[in-house]
Formats: sequence, structure tokens, C-alpha cells
Amino acid sequence: MVATEQDLAFMSEALVLAEQGLYSAHPNPCVGAVLVKDGRVIGRGAHLQAGEPHAEVLALKEAGAAARGATAYVTLEPCSHYGRTPPCADALIAAGIARVVIAMRDPNPLVAGRGVERLRAAGVVAEEGCLEAAAEALNPGFLRRMRHGRPWLRLKQAMSLDGRVALANGRSQWLTGEAARADVQQERARASAILVGIGTVLADNPRLAPRLEAPLRRYPVKVIMDSHLRTPPDAALFGTPGAVWIFHGQDAPVAARAALCAAGAELLFCRGTVQGLDWQEVMGMLAERQINEVLVEAGPGVAASLFAAGLIDEWLLYVAPLLLGLDARPVLATGPYSDLAEVPRWSVIQSSRLGNDIKWTLRPQER
Amino acid sequence: MVATEQDLAFMSEALVLAEQGLYSAHPNPCVGAVLVKDGRVIGRGAHLQAGEPHAEVLALKEAGAAARGATAYVTLEPCSHYGRTPPCADALIAAGIARVVIAMRDPNPLVAGRGVERLRAAGVVAEEGCLEAAAEALNPGFLRRMRHGRPWLRLKQAMSLDGRVALANGRSQWLTGEAARADVQQERARASAILVGIGTVLADNPRLAPRLEAPLRRYPVKVIMDSHLRTPPDAALFGTPGAVWIFHGQDAPVAARAALCAAGAELLFCRGTVQGLDWQEVMGMLAERQINEVLVEAGPGVAASLFAAGLIDEWLLYVAPLLLGLDARPVLATGPYSDLAEVPRWSVIQSSRLGNDIKWTLRPQER
Repeated sequence: MVATEQDLAFMSEALVLAEQGLYSAHPNPCVGAVLVKDGRVIGRGAHLQAGEPHAEVLALKEAGAAARGATAYVTLEPCSHYGRTPPCADALIAAGIARVVIAMRDPNPLVAGRGVERLRAAGVVAEEGCLEAAAEALNPGFLRRMRHGRPWLRLKQAMSLDGRVALANGRSQWLTGEAARADVQQERARASAILVGIGTVLADNPRLAPRLEAPLRRYPVKVIMDSHLRTPPDAALFGTPGAVWIFHGQDAPVAARAALCAAGAELLFCRGTVQGLDWQEVMGMLAERQINEVLVEAGPGVAASLFAAGLIDEWLLYVAPLLLGLDARPVLATGPYSDLAEVPRWSVIQSSRLGNDIKWTLRPQER
Repeated sequence: MVATEQDLAFMSEALVLAEQGLYSAHPNPCVGAVLVKDGRVIGRGAHLQAGEPHAEVLALKEAGAAARGATAYVTLEPCSHYGRTPPCADALIAAGIARVVIAMRDPNPLVAGRGVERLRAAGVVAEEGCLEAAAEALNPGFLRRMRHGRPWLRLKQAMSLDGRVALANGRSQWLTGEAARADVQQERARASAILVGIGTVLADNPRLAPRLEAPLRRYPVKVIMDSHLRTPPDAALFGTPGAVWIFHGQDAPVAARAALCAAGAELLFCRGTVQGLDWQEVMGMLAERQINEVLVEAGPGVAASLFAAGLIDEWLLYVAPLLLGLDARPVLATGPYSDLAEVPRWSVIQSSRLGNDIKWTLRPQER
């Protein structure tokens, strides 16, 4: 479609609305909708939580009878199937919407163009592709899961200017400052799941829940990679909100299984490989369980194996301006290289200053 | 002084004017001036080059007879001495200026409060301290030289995410991208001098001149640290604009001295230490020769010795998003540390994205 300036403005508004679901829409995508008649917005909607009304329905409700003949701007193709709520395409048709502008097609195989078809079959003008890239950026996890059957993996690490995560003796508190640590809470809150290895559980006894002032509509699942089920049943993470899922291997002791189940964990058996758990299998299982975005807070070992498996979609680096020295623990052991052309490069998606630290958002560069 | 909103607005304008001299005012400070009468700007001036009129004089010229009774906003205390131009304090008095608002006092021992005294003695209201911090930030080199008898040292390095400047085999082209390299040209252009070690001259045969589209009013001095005078008389840096100064030690061969003088270099004898040239002595000599800001483009060896001497005022790091690996050459060999509290920290003055790289501007943190 050739979007007019008006189309772009109203779709931008719908995109901003969609962001309201960033922390809660999971496992659904964030969607925003704006209804416009005679150049004036007559209805707005955002999808906030699974089971609650979709963005289109909320916008139609606000507009009421005025919706007849209006244009709808939606950030994702309206659904065509009965889920927990009836199809939005039908609701738009029933309300007499004349034209629907869609930022992007829904890759969900239950929709995937059928929403558009349904609208067109009913005589509604349906146009696609208005601010598509921005709409894509809203839902990396949902889209990765629908298209590739795995979640979007964000690896979060805090390091020094010289790429070190801790001193040789393991000390790393506090490498980054308060603003960076507060930002991590936001990253946790938006994740569908927070993933750590058993090493981190045993070393740090983390709570693995976002620490925010206001309670959340939804808490991320706490995922532990623990082939031999060494997680202590009294670990701190059992005392914080959110489900606990533990991936384990074949030879996990029966007693541990019983104790962890009693502590409230859900145990997920994973065939695994000689080296440990199989990441591809784990990712598939997480996607089946509707996990969109995973925040990996693991140590350098787990991080390295995820890099090796090519599964890191995004690397969040909180960099503190100091040099920990050549004997300190590296964020990732790479090299040796003999040519710069061999070295994997990353794309800088964002860089922002947080107090006296800097946050880099990187994605692997296509080669 | 208690600055009014109007004072702040007009001083801001003067500060913006002052920036016009950033690339050319050397060895003088950047200064801006704005004359205001009845709430309206009637004259503007910026000091662009040594020997040319000072900011106040240009502003007075623009205002003409209207200057009588006006307020002058100047980013630095008006001078009280005869240099290449007559004292600005006298010019302001002669023009009938009623009030002078001054961002900061001039630490130049030839002025240092005498400009203010002179104004007050003539019945002019003189107020100091309006946007003082911003005025300080304009002239780090001039102020460092006046207050401490040495230039402001900026160390520029390009490195990877893991703090490496080159692969183990020395390869480093091109670590950073075009935007970062273009920014380096700007940093070169504003420097009074660009400093390298003989190692860099022999390895890279650098031109050491800013590569910019438009010719500059002034070119930085090219400074080489070369105790034994091994600089080739046909080095590329002799073919670019700007003077060449070579610091050498006692045992530099006589033949080399003659050849380098013939090539156009000025040779500066430095007593030196057992390890080589003495940085404190070099810095003192550069300050005596009116060098305000030095851009150090040296390799890790020179950089490390400057760090050790505590002479780095600012560290410009161009960081490329890739990991060169544990065998690659470190930007600076530090550590070992056993406690994070021992590790020197830096303050982030600025961070900006340049293409796919990030530039950090750091300053040592007070301990």
C-alpha cells in the first residue's frame, strides 16, 4: 500500500497503544487499534492480557455506532479464528468498518492472511504494510515463535570496558550502578521467562523475579537448566511470584524430583546430549509452552553454549567504565582469529546511557 | 550572582557563539559575547583566531552607538592587558556598557580578576558565575594550561567490545566504521597538537593531519615522541599541513638531527628518564609553547605510560561491537585486582552512537 501522511500518523498512534501490552500481553502479541472517522479518532484499544478483549474490540466499543463507515488502524492483522475471544475480523465487519489499515500480517498459522481475506470477502477495504518494521519490532518473541518454533532469546550481561564480568576471584558486586540495575528489572518484567543455569542458582541463590514498586499483571516463568536436579528445594526463587520450570536429564535422582515437585516446580524432561541439555530441544519445548521472550541471566558458561548454538537473538550488555584487567573473567572466550573478516560482528540496535554505565542492545549481524 | 531567566538565555547564546572558535581560536580560548539592550540583542561576537578581534570588540562593533547603556554577556572575563589587541575591558567601558555578565573568571595570570576590577572601577556593574560550568567545558585545554601548566590530554583509541585494539598478529583495519573514523577527523581538527610515539610513525607512516573537505584556518602541530630520532625524513607527516615537533633525548644521532631539521621538523630536547622521555617535562614544554589540547593517537605502549603518569584527562574510546578474543592485543594491561573497590573508575561524560560503533568520552573519577 501507499500510506498517506494521515495513515502513518494514525498507525503511529496505534503502535504507541500497542506498547501498553508489553509487560502483560504474553503469550499473545501486543496489538493496538485506532478507529478514525472524518479525520478524528473515535476509538482506541490495546490488548493488555490474554483472555481480555483484543485491541479492535476495545476500540469498537469506545466508538459505538459511530464506527459505521470508519477506518480501523491495527498493528497486526485482525484474527479470523475463535480463541478465548471471537474473531476480530468479524467484529470489524459487523460494526460496519469501511477500511482496515494493517501494519503487518499475523504469522500465526491460525490467521496468516485469513483475517484479511475475511474482511475483503465482506467488502471491507483491507490494506497491509503500513509501518510494518515498527510493528515487527513490537513482538520479536511472538513472531520468532510463530515463524521458527522457538522463543526470542535475550542474553543479559554486565561487564567492564575490557569485556570482563568479574574479577579473577569471582567478585562482581557492584560492577554497574543503580540505573543499570533498575533497567534490568524492566527487562525482567517484559520477559515471558527468565532462564538461568544451575551454577547461578547454587552460587547466587537468585530470586529471579522483577523487583518493581507496583505489582505486575503477570510474572515471568523462572526456568532453570539443571540436568541432575541439584536445585535446592528451599532456593529463594521458590518464594517469589511466577512459575518455576526445571529442565533436567535422564539421570536426575528420583528423590530430588519428588522434593522439587513438592516445592512447586514443574519438571521438564529433556533428552539432552553428552555435554548436557540440548538447547534446540529446550527452545522447542519453551515455544510449545507459549514462551515468547526469554531473558537469559546465566553465567559465562551457559552464555558461551548459547552463542555456540547460534541461539542468541539479542545481547543486552550493561557496560561499566572501568578495566577489570587481563586476569579477570571474560564475558565470552572467543578467538584466536588471524583476520578481522573472520570475527563475528554485531549490529548496534540501541545504545543508551544509564547513570554512569552504558547499555548496548546488539543483534548478530547476517554474514 | 543570581542569574535571571533572561541572563541564562543570553549567556547561552554567547556560549553557542563561542563554539565557533573551537577549531581555530587556539592558543586563545573560545569566547562569545552578546550585547543586549531593552531585552533585544544588538551585537554578537565570537573570537575566531589569535590576532583577530576578541568577541567583545566584534559585538561592540555590530552594536555601534546603541551599545551605550547595554548589558554585555561574555563567556570569559574580559581581558585587562595589551596582547595582540588592546584590553576588552577598556573597550566595554569606552562604549558605555552599563553591566557586564561574565560566565567565568579568566585564570590567565595576566587577567585573573583584573578585568572585573577594571570594569567596576569605571562604574560598570560586573557579575560573575552565570553558566560557569558550561563556560569551563568550552576551554578544557586553555584552562588546564593556565591552571596547571600543562595541556589537556585526550587519548583516542579504537577497540572492540572486549577491550582489544588489534588481533594478536597486529591487524586492526578496519575495526570501527566510517562514521567513527569521520568523527576522529573532527577530534583531530580541534586539537592544538596530535601526539604519537615513534612506534606508530614507523609502523603506520601516518599523515597526522585532519582529513576534512574544507581547508582549516589552523592545523594542529604534529608531535612525535622519538628519543633516538628514528623518524624517517621522508615520513608522510612531513607532507601534510601543520608544524612537526619531535621530542628527542640526549643520545639522538647528529646526522638524524640535521636530516630532520632539513625536512622541516623542530627538534625539542628533553632530558628524559631511564625509561625514555619524561612526560611531565614534555607536557610542561608543550604548555610553554601554548598547546592547549593534545590528541594522543599513540599505541598501547605510549597510552599505558600516560595512564601510569596520571596525565590522561579524557579518554575517547571508539568501540566496535565485536569480540577480538582473549589472545588479541589489549587496549591497556591492568590488574590483577582482588577487590572491585581497587579498580580505577571513569566517569562517562558522553556516549554517542556513530554508525554501528559507539564513542565513549570518559574522564578519570576522583577517588
